[in-house]
Amino acid sequence: MTAATRGRRRGSPDTRAAILAAARARFAESGFAGTTIRGVAGDAGVDPALVHHYFGSKDDLFVAALELPVDPRAVLAEQVVGPVEGAGERLLRALIGVWDDPALRPALLAMVRRLIEPGGDALFRGGFLPVVLVPLGAALGVDRPERRMQLVASQVIGVIVLRYVVRADAIVAMDVDTLVATYAPVLDGFLAGPLP
Amino acid sequence: MTAATRGRRRGSPDTRAAILAAARARFAESGFAGTTIRGVAGDAGVDPALVHHYFGSKDDLFVAALELPVDPRAVLAEQVVGPVEGAGERLLRALIGVWDDPALRPALLAMVRRLIEPGGDALFRGGFLPVVLVPLGAALGVDRPERRMQLVASQVIGVIVLRYVVRADAIVAMDVDTLVATYAPVLDGFLAGPLP
Repeated sequence: MTAATRGRRRGSPDTRAAILAAARARFAESGFAGTTIRGVAGDAGVDPALVHHYFGSKDDLFVAALELPVDPRAVLAEQVVGPVEGAGERLLRALIGVWDDPALRPALLAMVRRLIEPGGDALFRGGFLPVVLVPLGAALGVDRPERRMQLVASQVIGVIVLRYVVRADAIVAMDVDTLVATYAPVLDGFLAGPLP
Repeated sequence: MTAATRGRRRGSPDTRAAILAAARARFAESGFAGTTIRGVAGDAGVDPALVHHYFGSKDDLFVAALELPVDPRAVLAEQVVGPVEGAGERLLRALIGVWDDPALRPALLAMVRRLIEPGGDALFRGGFLPVVLVPLGAALGVDRPERRMQLVASQVIGVIVLRYVVRADAIVAMDVDTLVATYAPVLDGFLAGPLP
């Protein structure tokens, strides 16, 4: 199959791959705020309009560069956004639903490992936080979403590491209801409780 | 300086390194329970008595193989063991004290990254948990220390990742008292609260 028979909309696989590689390098080096579609296009040797055409907005390009099996913004919008009451439970159920799917887990694990490697701080602070987490906090209507979502992340990342990365038996053994009973009060406190 | 002038007690650096390399390989492959001093000694081509002489018990050998700048058991025994009331605060203060020391942090970061890499699950479940964490829970007198210490770890690891690995600004900016006010209630709930 040639590039032409795949249709112009998907673009040449080589061009798409070159844009994604350029985007990953730029986001890692300059963070989300310091990266422009124009700069990525220049690095990839294509017109900026082509980047928009293939990938949409800069947010979309960032999420595409993460190479996740699901768009976390879509999962959160469908399953988590709503009243802040119950948000901890909804977030946990959405998270466990995605992570407990064996088809999705390898790519999710790869992303967590990239976050923790040297350079992963830019990926988190410069991208995942402003593109995915802070908008979720804003959509939940919490005050100080920047701070509260970092507290939420500090518990959620720990649960992910214990349950899916190091597979600690007591955390692996918990069913979804037990996980919710254990962690939703912590998350609700971080989302809506008093901040020290 | 020859090995002889360094004194017999420290041992030949080559022999010590060979024992540590063999220990790391065994612990990673067989976990803590499945590793014996005799097996490590055989892999390193030395007498088991020499392993005991250089490194002490199997617990001590495991901690030595982690190549940490401090022995976590000593820090916990000195600063955290005591009544379960206030244990969350003592644990956080000990943890932050060690991690905020720039001389210690590179080796601690290296250990966290090893935990999260493929194979790190054996290091955690087969070693760090039974050698360091569960004995701490037992020393604090909690019921079901195996389960409660995994809950504690699920919050502590998240704080470490956010503050020291991805350096999320709101978590980095918290002073020790604010971290304690934020996270000690969570840890105290995991240590002494009702379990779902």
